[in-house]
Amino acid sequence: MRLGFIGLGTMGRPMALHLLRAGHQLAVWARQSGTTRPLLAAGAIDCSSAAEVARRAEVVFTMVTGGADVEQLTFAGDGLLAGFAPGSILVDMSTIAPETARSLAQRLARHGIEMLDAPVSGGQQGAMAATLAIMVGGEAAALERVRPLFELLGTRIVHVGEHGAGQVAKACNQMVMVAAIQAIAEALHLSGAAGVDPARVRLALAGGSAASRVLEVMGGRMVERDFAAGVEARLHHKDYAVVLGEAHRLGLPMPVSAQVCQQLNALMAMGWGSADTAALLRVLEAGERAT
Amino acid sequence: MRLGFIGLGTMGRPMALHLLRAGHQLAVWARQSGTTRPLLAAGAIDCSSAAEVARRAEVVFTMVTGGADVEQLTFAGDGLLAGFAPGSILVDMSTIAPETARSLAQRLARHGIEMLDAPVSGGQQGAMAATLAIMVGGEAAALERVRPLFELLGTRIVHVGEHGAGQVAKACNQMVMVAAIQAIAEALHLSGAAGVDPARVRLALAGGSAASRVLEVMGGRMVERDFAAGVEARLHHKDYAVVLGEAHRLGLPMPVSAQVCQQLNALMAMGWGSADTAALLRVLEAGERAT
Repeated sequence: MRLGFIGLGTMGRPMALHLLRAGHQLAVWARQSGTTRPLLAAGAIDCSSAAEVARRAEVVFTMVTGGADVEQLTFAGDGLLAGFAPGSILVDMSTIAPETARSLAQRLARHGIEMLDAPVSGGQQGAMAATLAIMVGGEAAALERVRPLFELLGTRIVHVGEHGAGQVAKACNQMVMVAAIQAIAEALHLSGAAGVDPARVRLALAGGSAASRVLEVMGGRMVERDFAAGVEARLHHKDYAVVLGEAHRLGLPMPVSAQVCQQLNALMAMGWGSADTAALLRVLEAGERAT
Repeated sequence: MRLGFIGLGTMGRPMALHLLRAGHQLAVWARQSGTTRPLLAAGAIDCSSAAEVARRAEVVFTMVTGGADVEQLTFAGDGLLAGFAPGSILVDMSTIAPETARSLAQRLARHGIEMLDAPVSGGQQGAMAATLAIMVGGEAAALERVRPLFELLGTRIVHVGEHGAGQVAKACNQMVMVAAIQAIAEALHLSGAAGVDPARVRLALAGGSAASRVLEVMGGRMVERDFAAGVEARLHHKDYAVVLGEAHRLGLPMPVSAQVCQQLNALMAMGWGSADTAALLRVLEAGERAT
């Protein structure tokens, strides 16, 4: 199949490589041309604009930072819309606001372009191992055309609902995951302060009702004090604008999510946005030292 | 071995049965005599006081509600201390404050009695399947004497540290677990309000970084709106007095745990203390309806 991929960062690069290695033709373009190098080396087609990517592809994947990036990529003068033929599909795997996803889908539909919102969970490890969870919003028919491609990227593909529903699920995912990171940070900080080895505590918790992937991965990073980035905390901080934006739009009290966002704000204020979100532990420790 | 068991509730009853069925002699007593019936039917020895249980046993297990109950059971006139021979071991598997556990251990040591704090995680299901996580504080030598008995009750036995360390780990366990329940309630409430099926969202999340036992068990109860008790919410509410008591004693900010406690307070105020803690979802919904 003729595919395109834009957004070749920590997540996008391994995903694009999976598509390419499965034998698909893959057109790529990036604002910073160095970014495409590993893909070109593996046989991808070098394009001079997003429009050219769209011209060369039936399905274009985007994996960028925020809603504004997807808007710009799509509607700029040499953007995707300028190159798409009717019947093409835009698969946006970025994490953006559900409303932005719905609005993009509506505007593209006027030009006969299908869109799926298909954000993922599983981190860099999941992207590399092709074990991502993919949360899909949009038309079932479009999903079925793309499903064999998703199966090259992930092991759980869930059609959550209409346009935007994938992004709602992703917002939910971030609420649950980052709250878990913060709660584990509080627990391990408490145990250390009480004179009990956090490594032993994590080991004990892993066998009971508190067991989770976050305890395993981020809990492990906290115990080993390895705050080098898995997923950079600034990306989770960004996601909480979506989470609390939805809560505000719908008029829903989200007490723990709001508190988690404040801790992410504190993390950013301390200059740790490029660290792993396990650094929420350091925010608690810093508060302690300041007294 | 000659054993005793006091506290034959939802958790204690299946645990006591495992000990009995493994061929140990088991002495039991309960404030409400009906409670002992299933154990007596299975061959346990009926005692007229905690002191008699202690007289008949080398190791006595307690699985009661709070620190005050353990104090009373141990030091009342016809309590355990009145019956224990030197060299006996008290294994308290209740969830109580770490300081209470340390204080009990010190007072018992003056009489030559060993104590282990050994709270558990895994719920009623874990108790019945003998797959509990057991978090042990106290002397390694005492743990080694008791370990074969613990192996009849659980699959993960972690010696966390000195007296009280098991209770610190359990407090950490509750912080992580109940924060997860609250975050999942917020996420599923948000998705429902956004017009997206919470069952699909839970399915999508289960494959990614937000996967956890809580998402599986309590998330499932929320989706099915089954708020019949697994573990009664009032017990988690009680545990948060221990969590926030430790945080206050140590002077540590625990922003998410404090917020979770407020939601548990709201749950209690609404009269849902006997429901499963998945009813934290109903607290969010009730707040919505009141506006």
